Amino acid sequence: MKGGGHGGVQSKDLKSLEGKSVTLTGWIDSFRELGKLTFIVMGDPEGNYQAIARDDMAKKIVQVPRQSYIKIWGQVVRGQGKASPFEVRMDGFEVINSADTVLPIDPASKIKSELATRVNNRPLDLRIPEERAVFLMRAKAMKVIREFLTGSGFIEVDTPKIIATASEGGAELFKFDYFGRPAYLAQSPQLYKEELTLSLGKVFEISHYFRAEKSNTVKHLNEFMSVDVEAAMAKKDDAMKLIEGLVREIYYRLEINHKITKSFPVYTYEYIANNAGLKFGEDLSSDVMNDFGKDKGYYFIIDWPISLKPFYTMPKGDTLSESFDLMYGGLEIASGGQRIHQYEMLRSRLKANGLDPENFSEHLKAYRWGMPPHSGWGMGLDRLLMVIMNKENIREVVLYPRDSRHLAP
Amino acid sequence: MKGGGHGGVQSKDLKSLEGKSVTLTGWIDSFRELGKLTFIVMGDPEGNYQAIARDDMAKKIVQVPRQSYIKIWGQVVRGQGKASPFEVRMDGFEVINSADTVLPIDPASKIKSELATRVNNRPLDLRIPEERAVFLMRAKAMKVIREFLTGSGFIEVDTPKIIATASEGGAELFKFDYFGRPAYLAQSPQLYKEELTLSLGKVFEISHYFRAEKSNTVKHLNEFMSVDVEAAMAKKDDAMKLIEGLVREIYYRLEINHKITKSFPVYTYEYIANNAGLKFGEDLSSDVMNDFGKDKGYYFIIDWPISLKPFYTMPKGDTLSESFDLMYGGLEIASGGQRIHQYEMLRSRLKANGLDPENFSEHLKAYRWGMPPHSGWGMGLDRLLMVIMNKENIREVVLYPRDSRHLAP
Repeated sequence: MKGGGHGGVQSKDLKSLEGKSVTLTGWIDSFRELGKLTFIVMGDPEGNYQAIARDDMAKKIVQVPRQSYIKIWGQVVRGQGKASPFEVRMDGFEVINSADTVLPIDPASKIKSELATRVNNRPLDLRIPEERAVFLMRAKAMKVIREFLTGSGFIEVDTPKIIATASEGGAELFKFDYFGRPAYLAQSPQLYKEELTLSLGKVFEISHYFRAEKSNTVKHLNEFMSVDVEAAMAKKDDAMKLIEGLVREIYYRLEINHKITKSFPVYTYEYIANNAGLKFGEDLSSDVMNDFGKDKGYYFIIDWPISLKPFYTMPKGDTLSESFDLMYGGLEIASGGQRIHQYEMLRSRLKANGLDPENFSEHLKAYRWGMPPHSGWGMGLDRLLMVIMNKENIREVVLYPRDSRHLAP
Repeated sequence: MKGGGHGGVQSKDLKSLEGKSVTLTGWIDSFRELGKLTFIVMGDPEGNYQAIARDDMAKKIVQVPRQSYIKIWGQVVRGQGKASPFEVRMDGFEVINSADTVLPIDPASKIKSELATRVNNRPLDLRIPEERAVFLMRAKAMKVIREFLTGSGFIEVDTPKIIATASEGGAELFKFDYFGRPAYLAQSPQLYKEELTLSLGKVFEISHYFRAEKSNTVKHLNEFMSVDVEAAMAKKDDAMKLIEGLVREIYYRLEINHKITKSFPVYTYEYIANNAGLKFGEDLSSDVMNDFGKDKGYYFIIDWPISLKPFYTMPKGDTLSESFDLMYGGLEIASGGQRIHQYEMLRSRLKANGLDPENFSEHLKAYRWGMPPHSGWGMGLDRLLMVIMNKENIREVVLYPRDSRHLAP
């Protein structure tokens, strides 16, 4: 479909076609009538441009509902403003698919619709070039992440989203009947990616995961995109270096203006807890982190109490763990560290977390086959994109967000 | 974790390190004792190589259970056979994580374990270089597909797997409770990718999807990987050209021996149905297709009866449809064609399929916003990989397959 789409020519091709006769398809964004002329802002996935109809055609085209999908043909001429360097002087047009006259969003309007309306009518919202740009950047971020990780020797894997046991233990999962047995939607590829370090060494997965928590905040969704890595023989510090390098690469390749230059600061859990007057072992709430993270960019929190981390986390001494969170301001972006690779220790940590090792027997067995020490992390891609694109609500960067209220579209 | 893994050096680095002292980590594949020497086949994610221990060390290392994860150090020397061009003359070793002495699979054995055993112990199965190669090729295929589609102007998107309405209608879906409402696991991104052609033009998605059919065949799984594309202004023929081009690209880039040179033959449904003595409208069963496809490579089946295709399929005349299947022998690899872009036609096709348009209102509304004509396809990646790698069972190319019997590991 190379060259097959959009009648062959797309808006971005116009600059190389001055003086030529062309045919384009796209949608009508808006009209402006001026005497015998009608100036039409046309849109296609590549951008907007101006087309000019005159006389009868000028009168006829304003009858077509805006956002209708049409075909136009005519000559490419040099335009008059920066906004429209090349225009199409129309010889004719044809309506391919007419739009309703009343639309839930007017993409040509300077007044932005409410987020809820935009999300409920996403394909129409994406007729606004600025909104489309968000998802072009999302696509590019995924490309950069894959290239960076592949270039660092990681192998892309895909593991099941239908699972038999809660991988993190305890968390709220969507549950369903799987041919007579209870099954759950995975909240992470944690156990699988750890198992795979046994033979594949360094693996990554980028996929949707699911959490059944009934919260409707600006930073939570019930279905989210996670970037997960795990590497044999890597330590917590290696994992931190990798994610910092990846974030830098994304900023560089996506040409983000608000540059990040100095290395990410590192704070201990204890420092932040003391600061907030918390006792050791108390979790760092959203309020505490919003307060601490105010005016901060990216930073790490290390040395979390083992009691606050999942069962697979490698202990550090009696009470701490070899773990880290990557934060941006008050927002958690990623979580990771070194994992337990010894069978007996993993069994006892399961028990210490109130979990039954029997339920994890299919996972535990891999730890009897010569499991290498390993570290890794999981990063919320949606959250990283919020930060990168300066969005206040995670729903701005997800095409069809899922929360406890929204199951459709 | 670049350079962080595997003690810095990996097996593939040995050839550039002749005469140097190195440290490597990996697993013990097998031993061979010869007088005062022990020859150890060592493995790491990059491959196998030989290490040589002598005297006391030779006696000590054979006590370590095979598949244990160990660290070795010594000097790189030129080896004696093609199988082992460079070897490590060991100065010492250390056991990092000991394996059990009895293992469900012996990766060093020349006798292949049964598929069920291998799948149930996948990480250990992947200590066999040939089995690991399957998933390295899977990762590479995904990379090639993304590069090809991005290079053809397609934008990668990710759409929800939790949905409110069966996208294909009628098929068996996994159902669960979503905060008090019934929800389903998506069996394809069909409706979302169609909607997105409205503004993004050409989109693709590579993701897991789910079908609740209780079949245990060599070519079906309940969770599978699908490659989906959809393009505005594309016709059925464009969609066919794209997928043929993609398959060729994969063969070329993966250096598959059994080359495909001539263009994929095209048969009509009617030709095959007549051949098999079927009446028009009867489906082409597995038996019919295995018979027809015998000794055939890739080919298309076009002009399917509209009654055999989903509601969104564009009709062709009164009884046919603008659809195609891509086959390899008797195996369906992909399915696609032109879709309906007109609101009223889509509504009436929903009804003709016994579906209630009210249930699709969140989807249908996008067809009132100037939807472009569009075509696309969905390809089963697992099946394509079966063909490419000459595997008889789809479970050979999926890390942790899900069928009605297997929910773990």
